[in-house]
Amino acid sequence: MRTRAAVAIAAGKPLEVMEVNLEGPRAGEVLVEIKATGLCHTDEFTRSGDDPEGIFPAILGHEGAGVVIEVGEGVTSLEVGDHVIPLYTPECRECEYCLNPKTNLCQKIRSTQGAGLLPDGSTRFSMLDGTPIHHYMGCSTFANHTVVPEIALAKVRKDAPFDKICYIGCGVTTGIGAVINTAKVEIGSTAIVFGLGGIGLNVIQGLRLAGADQIVGVDLNDDKEKMSRHFGMTDFVNPSKVDGDLVAHLVELTGGGADYTFDATGNVSVMRTALEAAHKGWGESIIIGVAPAGAEISTRPFQLVTGRSWRGTAFGGASGRTDVPKIVDWYMDGKIEIDPMITHKLTLDEINHGFDLMHEGKSIRAVVEF
Amino acid sequence: MRTRAAVAIAAGKPLEVMEVNLEGPRAGEVLVEIKATGLCHTDEFTRSGDDPEGIFPAILGHEGAGVVIEVGEGVTSLEVGDHVIPLYTPECRECEYCLNPKTNLCQKIRSTQGAGLLPDGSTRFSMLDGTPIHHYMGCSTFANHTVVPEIALAKVRKDAPFDKICYIGCGVTTGIGAVINTAKVEIGSTAIVFGLGGIGLNVIQGLRLAGADQIVGVDLNDDKEKMSRHFGMTDFVNPSKVDGDLVAHLVELTGGGADYTFDATGNVSVMRTALEAAHKGWGESIIIGVAPAGAEISTRPFQLVTGRSWRGTAFGGASGRTDVPKIVDWYMDGKIEIDPMITHKLTLDEINHGFDLMHEGKSIRAVVEF
Repeated sequence: MRTRAAVAIAAGKPLEVMEVNLEGPRAGEVLVEIKATGLCHTDEFTRSGDDPEGIFPAILGHEGAGVVIEVGEGVTSLEVGDHVIPLYTPECRECEYCLNPKTNLCQKIRSTQGAGLLPDGSTRFSMLDGTPIHHYMGCSTFANHTVVPEIALAKVRKDAPFDKICYIGCGVTTGIGAVINTAKVEIGSTAIVFGLGGIGLNVIQGLRLAGADQIVGVDLNDDKEKMSRHFGMTDFVNPSKVDGDLVAHLVELTGGGADYTFDATGNVSVMRTALEAAHKGWGESIIIGVAPAGAEISTRPFQLVTGRSWRGTAFGGASGRTDVPKIVDWYMDGKIEIDPMITHKLTLDEINHGFDLMHEGKSIRAVVEF
Repeated sequence: MRTRAAVAIAAGKPLEVMEVNLEGPRAGEVLVEIKATGLCHTDEFTRSGDDPEGIFPAILGHEGAGVVIEVGEGVTSLEVGDHVIPLYTPECRECEYCLNPKTNLCQKIRSTQGAGLLPDGSTRFSMLDGTPIHHYMGCSTFANHTVVPEIALAKVRKDAPFDKICYIGCGVTTGIGAVINTAKVEIGSTAIVFGLGGIGLNVIQGLRLAGADQIVGVDLNDDKEKMSRHFGMTDFVNPSKVDGDLVAHLVELTGGGADYTFDATGNVSVMRTALEAAHKGWGESIIIGVAPAGAEISTRPFQLVTGRSWRGTAFGGASGRTDVPKIVDWYMDGKIEIDPMITHKLTLDEINHGFDLMHEGKSIRAVVEF
């Protein structure tokens, strides 16, 4: 079949919207009609050429929602008409990682996914001239139709709006999951969130859901304060307006350091601040942000010996097929909010404008609707 | 009263054994006759002048055992004749830290202890000319008699030999506690221990006690292999004999990385290796060693985002008054071994020879008996 997609032809170039060929699903694969997709910083990290592992040409996008159109041989958990969210972290439920409750990093199809291929080592997308187009994070949601492995699709309720729940495919789950799956924040905790963008806001509402007493937000942009307070932030700190040492300021504000701190910036210097602003004796610092290639974190080991823990999270520690449907329920039940974070709606043809909005700091999430 | 002590007169000088004045215990304090004391690398770190927080003159030593001779006003948990082990990490059971089960870092007397003083801000030791002599880590066990706060004394059974259980005052508890209190190693785990000295051997026997399946020891000195195997090590790696990358070698040896890794070297480069040899998805790396002043650990944040945790431990996460008596019982019951690790016995007059043995790598623990 043919479908329309925004193709990343080469690193650093704008996406090109075009007709592409799409083969039908092979064994264990599913053809999905994408109804909506968010634009995430990770897509831009690859599009821009900053990602050293970026492969081109490729169809980017990993934060989508859609409907099953066709299932390949052997697919048993999904049928035509099911509503689904593609998962860049799959859940095969049989690998060593899926069977270990300490991790969500299913390794079943990791090597092919990292190479921009489906599990059989080939692509379903190609240019009209036959040139293969790579998949991206196993999702490629910047296409009206895509083929995804069965184990990388979460089946969700049919009454949930695609243009909102697509965000659960990455940002919402990453932020809320970092709080509830990775940090396992207890009721009454204190927390600091560094970076109040699309991930940070979801960390904040995760903390509210977990019953945190104090939720400090840190961002250089004062414009972030209002929305962050809406989602549950109790204290706002703009580092550019703090006299003296930021760590000392945060330690004082939280009565000795926070029980939990979260980096949602990807800046390794901020990651260090986040660790050192965690409480002596028991504070845990969780890295969510993706750092530039080659960047390293550092600190004095004394920070760890005196009881702080340094950890990280990917996809919020969520096992997607199990956890994503629950988060969709939480949204539909009003336990979490998504609507105010979807600040812009675009058509596929306008997708490059969505990256402009991201760079200008004007959007929390821009969503492309098909 | 007067007692005999090995006094650190100045940084970098040999200890001087001499008669010193010792005042009796004030309120909340206890006079202890030290029967035996181990020599630990931390004592040498301070004696040598490498410790930027070292204070002189001082009576070092923090790994002792002895008998209560006199109790000060208000002391209720100890009486004359009790056998005790001094605790450089006290346990007041009433501060914010003692009341939080996530930490053992009692802060009740931290500021005065760090300044080489007892909690009322003064010293009990002085030179015969009246010059005050500082306490060290709240213990000062390189003296035949010492005065220690009640909250910094663990009461232990009277049938346990002083020349063995003194080692529980630091090395044994630090190593075993890192496994059972900090890492909480599960039966069947895999582990790697870096540095097979007095701490590393106790990590190894802690891992055996915890039921680990594979216990890999890493040390540059082949002479460490035999004793380490005696304590439970299953695989020995000498990095100088590994072709290629040490992390890759250890990851292969442990089938993907170890569930738990422990640094008992204090070398920040080894600490990085230990983190990176932990298993993707769930491996935890615990820093035990004390790094040189100003040294920093570093790694790519990707190591944490893909599921490794970087943590530390002090005094093995043990709450001393509660946990140390249990470890003494384990020794008396034969659940753990100490005797083979006490490789040298010295008199107080021979104490400087003990540091020579340490530097020459000839001793695991040298113990001074009074």
